[in-house]
Amino acid sequence: MSLLTIGTVAFDAIETPFGKTDKIIGGSATYASLAASYFYDQIKIVAVVGDDFPQEEIKGFNDHHIDTEGLQIKQGEKSFFWSGKYHNDMNSRDTLVTDLNVLADFDPIIPESYQDCEYLFLGNLTPQVQQTVINRLKNRPKLIAMDTMNFWMDIAMDDLLETIKMVDVLIINDAEARQLSGEYSLVKAARKILTLGPKYLIIKKGEHGALLFHEDHVFSAPALPLAEVFDPTGAGDTFAGGFIGYMAKVGTVNFNNMKNAIIFGSALASFCVEKFGPEKIKNLSQEEVNARVQQFVSLASFEI
Amino acid sequence: MSLLTIGTVAFDAIETPFGKTDKIIGGSATYASLAASYFYDQIKIVAVVGDDFPQEEIKGFNDHHIDTEGLQIKQGEKSFFWSGKYHNDMNSRDTLVTDLNVLADFDPIIPESYQDCEYLFLGNLTPQVQQTVINRLKNRPKLIAMDTMNFWMDIAMDDLLETIKMVDVLIINDAEARQLSGEYSLVKAARKILTLGPKYLIIKKGEHGALLFHEDHVFSAPALPLAEVFDPTGAGDTFAGGFIGYMAKVGTVNFNNMKNAIIFGSALASFCVEKFGPEKIKNLSQEEVNARVQQFVSLASFEI
Repeated sequence: MSLLTIGTVAFDAIETPFGKTDKIIGGSATYASLAASYFYDQIKIVAVVGDDFPQEEIKGFNDHHIDTEGLQIKQGEKSFFWSGKYHNDMNSRDTLVTDLNVLADFDPIIPESYQDCEYLFLGNLTPQVQQTVINRLKNRPKLIAMDTMNFWMDIAMDDLLETIKMVDVLIINDAEARQLSGEYSLVKAARKILTLGPKYLIIKKGEHGALLFHEDHVFSAPALPLAEVFDPTGAGDTFAGGFIGYMAKVGTVNFNNMKNAIIFGSALASFCVEKFGPEKIKNLSQEEVNARVQQFVSLASFEI
Repeated sequence: MSLLTIGTVAFDAIETPFGKTDKIIGGSATYASLAASYFYDQIKIVAVVGDDFPQEEIKGFNDHHIDTEGLQIKQGEKSFFWSGKYHNDMNSRDTLVTDLNVLADFDPIIPESYQDCEYLFLGNLTPQVQQTVINRLKNRPKLIAMDTMNFWMDIAMDDLLETIKMVDVLIINDAEARQLSGEYSLVKAARKILTLGPKYLIIKKGEHGALLFHEDHVFSAPALPLAEVFDPTGAGDTFAGGFIGYMAKVGTVNFNNMKNAIIFGSALASFCVEKFGPEKIKNLSQEEVNARVQQFVSLASFEI
């Protein structure tokens, strides 16, 4: 029994109004697996890097009980590299560089020891690769959650719809939900998207929290109001990783557990934005995580 | 003991993507007092209209236990008239007509019978008029809540700051909080605004809910996700009216009661947008209001 995370493991160079970084590690599978590791200790990763990827970062994954047998290291090739610059409001950014490198022909090989996976998180990648991962698992996982982005809606909508049909939980942001459904109202968007296959839809609204839709049920999770957002990179992946890690921990898929999973994911994401890249979520204590979750409880609770 | 509401009682003509109205009644005091009437039955209104204002609308107020002794009717003059057109996303609008008419020289006269007021809501008006109302009350009310708008920040900031200093609760939207404080982060904005006088700050975020700030406490209230927003006119005033009406009902000013008051205000506002103008909030049953409040409870609740 394990949680399998697939996505990118990569280098990022980030510029925000608060400063800029050289190449630091990033990627959807990096953030998601680190976040999940605070709740669950059987995490396995499938991704690809070049031989420029530092050995100590792989050790860092292992220190978080993240199994890296499925992390392919391509000799003589370079890791995926993304560079971006955030605008002053932190809600929008320009991509400066996207070097696909090893990602260009990524074939997601699933080690035999990963076949026990019960929980699967498909980080943002080409829908075709996401689908391949599902097809290569001998048993369908108990819960498959998937992230994607507007880019795939623009260039690979048919593949994307095929993949969405195969998952239980789709995790996208508000703009992506509107684009995918063609509906401005998020309620109408959710109704349409829930006919495409997923039984659960999570719409991330950044500083405004997140909405969970399932059948006729809706849950609204707050975001923690923050004085400073230092670097939003990876917050969405961290949210998703915390979400699926918590679901793997509790082991029962239902609406109430998903509500809590969203709060735990939001708590992790609120840490992520406090420092550049995954720096903050590499080094949290359980006490810090629990205290942050309690802040969410007091933020949202009322008694009527 | 009573709740005094001051603001505009007026005519609006509204155009939304769903249709348009002729002149219908509107105004901040209209929405706020109607909303408050679902929780409290000693409501008094101070406002001014022309002799074009229909007698049956005044009777409509009285039917909602709203005392209109302080509603001045200026013979030979016309009521305030506003006309606006909403854009497709319903989040922005163009003002087409603003005819101040009787509002141009509004002198807010407080009838002697209103001097028992314990709760005061200052609807959006010139800060000078809002201040005059406070000064004309012989005893300071137990709770003064105030609404305002960016317009007064642009043209009457000094007067506005003077007035803000005198109130307990300031109710503004996110853009106004940013403008008033010069801070983009709402947490930083709130910290600054709470040094200006008010002990409580409510920041309305429209479809994203509302935040309540008090000392180091924050409460995040969700908005009900709606399939259709038919007409947003008056939703903010309805929210404020429901808020202060609930506070008057419970009679004790503290953070927990304010949290609930925000939920009741949000519930009323969610009805308001379902029809043109105040049509929907004129005719609600207590059962409908309670059921809507329960929707908010289930929307926001989780157990960790």
